[in-house]
Amino acid sequence: MGDNIAISTWDNIVARKRSIQVATLAAYEEEKILTSDSITSIDDVDKLSELLEKGELCAEEVILAYIKRAVAAHKLTNCLTEICFESALQRARTLDQYLKVNGKPIGPLHGIPFTVKDQFNVKGVDTTIGYVGMAFNPAFDDAAVVKILQDLGAIVVAKTNLPQSIMWCETENPLWGLTTNPRNPAFTPGGSTGGEGALLTLQGTMFGLGTDIGGSIRIPSAINGLYGLKPSSARLPYQGVPVSTEGQEHVPSAIGPMTRNLFSLTKITKFIINSQPWLLDPRTVPMPWRDDIYAETRSRPLVIGIMLDDGVVKAHPPIERVLKEVAVKLKAAGHELVDWKPDLHKKCIDIMDAFYTADGGEDIRRAIASGGEPYIPHVKALVNRGKPISVYEYWQLNKRKIAAQKAYLDKWNAVKGAESGRVVDVLLTPVIPHVAVPHRMTRWVGYTKIWNVLDYTALSFPAGTVSVEKDPLPSTPFKPRSELDAFNWNLYDPATMDGHPVGLQIVGRRFEEEKVLAAAKVFEDVLGKTA
Amino acid sequence: MGDNIAISTWDNIVARKRSIQVATLAAYEEEKILTSDSITSIDDVDKLSELLEKGELCAEEVILAYIKRAVAAHKLTNCLTEICFESALQRARTLDQYLKVNGKPIGPLHGIPFTVKDQFNVKGVDTTIGYVGMAFNPAFDDAAVVKILQDLGAIVVAKTNLPQSIMWCETENPLWGLTTNPRNPAFTPGGSTGGEGALLTLQGTMFGLGTDIGGSIRIPSAINGLYGLKPSSARLPYQGVPVSTEGQEHVPSAIGPMTRNLFSLTKITKFIINSQPWLLDPRTVPMPWRDDIYAETRSRPLVIGIMLDDGVVKAHPPIERVLKEVAVKLKAAGHELVDWKPDLHKKCIDIMDAFYTADGGEDIRRAIASGGEPYIPHVKALVNRGKPISVYEYWQLNKRKIAAQKAYLDKWNAVKGAESGRVVDVLLTPVIPHVAVPHRMTRWVGYTKIWNVLDYTALSFPAGTVSVEKDPLPSTPFKPRSELDAFNWNLYDPATMDGHPVGLQIVGRRFEEEKVLAAAKVFEDVLGKTA
Repeated sequence: MGDNIAISTWDNIVARKRSIQVATLAAYEEEKILTSDSITSIDDVDKLSELLEKGELCAEEVILAYIKRAVAAHKLTNCLTEICFESALQRARTLDQYLKVNGKPIGPLHGIPFTVKDQFNVKGVDTTIGYVGMAFNPAFDDAAVVKILQDLGAIVVAKTNLPQSIMWCETENPLWGLTTNPRNPAFTPGGSTGGEGALLTLQGTMFGLGTDIGGSIRIPSAINGLYGLKPSSARLPYQGVPVSTEGQEHVPSAIGPMTRNLFSLTKITKFIINSQPWLLDPRTVPMPWRDDIYAETRSRPLVIGIMLDDGVVKAHPPIERVLKEVAVKLKAAGHELVDWKPDLHKKCIDIMDAFYTADGGEDIRRAIASGGEPYIPHVKALVNRGKPISVYEYWQLNKRKIAAQKAYLDKWNAVKGAESGRVVDVLLTPVIPHVAVPHRMTRWVGYTKIWNVLDYTALSFPAGTVSVEKDPLPSTPFKPRSELDAFNWNLYDPATMDGHPVGLQIVGRRFEEEKVLAAAKVFEDVLGKTA
Repeated sequence: MGDNIAISTWDNIVARKRSIQVATLAAYEEEKILTSDSITSIDDVDKLSELLEKGELCAEEVILAYIKRAVAAHKLTNCLTEICFESALQRARTLDQYLKVNGKPIGPLHGIPFTVKDQFNVKGVDTTIGYVGMAFNPAFDDAAVVKILQDLGAIVVAKTNLPQSIMWCETENPLWGLTTNPRNPAFTPGGSTGGEGALLTLQGTMFGLGTDIGGSIRIPSAINGLYGLKPSSARLPYQGVPVSTEGQEHVPSAIGPMTRNLFSLTKITKFIINSQPWLLDPRTVPMPWRDDIYAETRSRPLVIGIMLDDGVVKAHPPIERVLKEVAVKLKAAGHELVDWKPDLHKKCIDIMDAFYTADGGEDIRRAIASGGEPYIPHVKALVNRGKPISVYEYWQLNKRKIAAQKAYLDKWNAVKGAESGRVVDVLLTPVIPHVAVPHRMTRWVGYTKIWNVLDYTALSFPAGTVSVEKDPLPSTPFKPRSELDAFNWNLYDPATMDGHPVGLQIVGRRFEEEKVLAAAKVFEDVLGKTA
C-alpha cells in the first residue's frame, strides 16, 4: 500500500480505485457498442492473426475495437478491474510500426489482445486479487506467462474481476463489486475467473487467462458458453501470479487459457508450452508440446468414461440431457463408452475440504485485515469453518491425499473398454450441476475440484443450451440424497434458465493436455461444430 | 507391530530381529568369501545379463554368489537388515526354468540381483526404516520401483541399513546397529543409504536403490567410490517407500540407483523410466527417457560450471586437488569452464534448515516413541532444534523456497560460457567436504542438500583417491570462516584417509537426468575410464 493512503479507510481506497477506473473508461465509451462488430466477432486467433499479418487490419484498430467492446461489456457486467488501454494502444502502434519497417509480424500473436484475471502481475499495474489491502501497490514485473505472450506479440488490454479470497465460484468483492452474467444481471457469471467469463462472452477480449484451484476456469467457461482449460498445475507457469493461501503446495492452483473457440484454446496453450516456460518458472515441468499425442488421440476411436452424477449433487435436467445427447453421438461415430462410477469422489472432496481450513483461515483473515473491508458471506463462512491444524497433522492429510491419488490412478488403469480392451482415454462429465443461477446460490463444485485434488487435466466446452421445452422437471419427483442435493435441485427453473449455455467437461490424467485438447476436437467434429 | 510383541520392551524386539537375522545368515556363511569372485566382480549389468542370457551362468548361481558375498560384507560392515535369500533363490530357479522352457530371458534384467535401503516396501518383509516400532509389520505390497525391477527380471536379495530417522548422513540406529566403512571400521560409510554403500563396495549386490533428501544417495556413493544418481523428485516413483516426515511436500525425497559403474547406473535409470512408472505412482511425471538429450549432450563441447567451495565449509585438500585435475582434463578435451559462484547457497540451505524443524520434531518423536528405543545423538539434537511453526508460517517458508528456486533459475540462465555464449550445461562440485571420516564426525551436507531444495538432478561419481603424498595440509594455515568450517578442516588426516575414494558431483537442472548421465559419460571418457 502506498504511503499516502496508509491512513485511509477501506471505503476511501475503494472510492479512489473506482474513480480512477471510471475516469479511465470514460474516454472510450461509445453508444450502441454492443451491436455486431466485424473485428471482435472473430473468435479464431489465427483468422485475426492473418488479417493483421496481411495488413488488412492494423494492431491499433484491433486493440481499439476491443477496448470499446470491453468498455461496453464492463458497463453491462462490471467485469473489469485494472485498465491498460493506454499502454495497449501504445504497444499496438509500436507493433504496427514494426510490421511496416520489417515487413513481418513481431511474433505469431502479433497484435492479438488478451486480458487477465486480476491475479496475474502486469508491470506497473496493481494486482489486487480482490483485496483492498493490495490496492496502490503496482507489480514490479510481468508474470511469466504475461511475458511469454507479450514476447509472442500479444497485447494485454485489461484485468478482470474475481471474488474476495479467490476461493469462490462467483465473482464479487468489496473493492470492485459484483460481476454479473452477460445474459441476465440477476445471475452470476460463475467464478472465480468470472470477470474474464463475462468479458469474453461479450467479445471484449480475444482470449483470457484464468486460474483454477477448484473449478475457477471451468465454471465460468461452462456458465458463459466458453472454452477453458485447467492443465495439470506444473504444466503452465504460475510464476508472478499472487494467490490466496500462497505457499500452500497441497493442491496447487493452475493457470490456463479461456477462449471463444477450441482452436484458439489449443493454439494459446501450445504457444505457451513451446515458449519453454520452465526457463522462467522453477515449478513448471520441462515438457514440450507433444504433437504425437495430439495426433494419435485424433486418429482412432476413443474409450470415453461417462459420468452423469457424482453421487453427491445431481446435475439439473438440461445438463443430463445434453450429456446424454453428446454420448449418443459419440457412440454413433464409433467411439466406445464406459460407465464411470464416482466411487472415490466423495473421499477426494473430503480431503480437499479439510485442506481449506488447514491454516484456520489465517491467510485470508490477514489479507482482509490489511485492507479493513468487510467479508463477503461465503468468505466469512470459509474462514470460520475450522481451527488451524498442526504441521504434523497437515502432513498426515497430505498422506491421505496421495493415497487417494494412488487409488484413483489404479482405478483408471483398471477400467477398460469392453470391446477394445483399451484403458479409458478421457472422461465426459458435468462441470457444475447447474447452468447460470442467481447470485450467491452456487454451493457445489465437486465436479471440478476432484480434478484439482488429483491434478488431472480438465477442459470445459459448450455442448448445448437449456431448452424450456426439452428440459422440463421430470414427472417423478427427484429424491435428493442430502440437503445440499435438494438445495441444488430446487434452483432449477427452466423458464429463467432457458437459452443459457450448458458446458461439459473432458478429463484426462496428469499432464495429458494434448490428449484432452485432441479429444475436445474429436468431440466437436462429432457434434458438427465448424471451429 | 504384531500382537505377540506388543508388550515387549524395545531391546527385546531388537534381540528378536537380530537373532532372526543371524539365523538366516548362518546357513550361507563361508570362509574366505572376500577373495576375488568371478561373478560378483562383474560391475556391468549388461555383461552379467549377457552371461545369463547365453546360459553361461544360471540365475541361481549368480544369486548364490551374491548372497555369499553379501553375508561376508555384512560380517565386515553390518550393512544388511532384512534378508530375502530364500525367496531370491526360489525366484532364480523359476527364472532358470523359464529360460530353459522359453529359450529367452524373462526380461532385460533376468536374474540380476539387487538390494534396497530398508525403506522400500518388499511384499511380506518388514520396512523398518531403522525404527524399532516398525519391526514385525511386513509390507502388503512391493514398492512401485521394486515391482518394475522384478517385472524386468531383477531379483531382490536383501535390504540394507540406514540411520534412525533417515535424516543423517551416517548409518546407525538402535534396531540394526552401526554400519561401518568397508575400508576402515572406525570410519563411517556415509549415509543415509550407507548399508547400500558398504554392500555395493564389497560386491555384495549388483545395484542398489537409495533415497536422497539431502545427499543420502550421493554421500555414501562418494565416500565408497560408487556411482549414485539423485534425480528430480518426480522422475522416479516414490510410491511404496515409507519415509520419515512422510507427507511433507516442501522438499520431496527422491529415489535413485547406486552402482559400481556408470553404464549400469544409466541402464537402470533408463529401464525404470521406460517402464512408465507414472502408471504406478501418481507423483511421477509422465516423461519417457529422452535419448535425444542424452545423445546431444555427448555430441559437443560442454559448458561446465566449476564450484570448488560453497563459501560455508571448505573441502579437504584431496577433494580440491581431484576437482582441479578433472577440470584441467575437461578443458584440455575442449570443454569450456566457467567459475560458478555459490552466492545463493547459504540462503537455500537456511530455508532447508527451517523446514527441518517445521513440525517441531513431532513425526520423528512419535516414530521413536512407538518403539521406545533411545535416540542417537544426531536425532536427539534434530528433534530439539526448534518449536513447531503454524501451517500459515509453513506456507510463508514455502514462498521463500519458491523465490530462492526462481533466483537460482535466473542465475543459471544468466551465466554463460565466455567463448560459446552458451548457458552452463552442468556443474562440477564436491559432494561432501571430506572423504570417509570417523563415525559421528560428519556435519555439513550443504554441497548436496542445495540440490534437494532446488529439486535439481545430481550425480556422484568416483574421480580419484586420497594420496598422502599429493594431499598434504597446505603450508599456509587455513583460516576457517566459522566454527563449522574449522571443525571440518580439523578432520583432515592424510595418513588415515590415504587411499580413500574422492567422489565429485555433476549437477543439472530439474528433470535433466539424461543430460547429467550423458555429462558423466563425457567426463569418464575424458578421465580415460573404460566402463
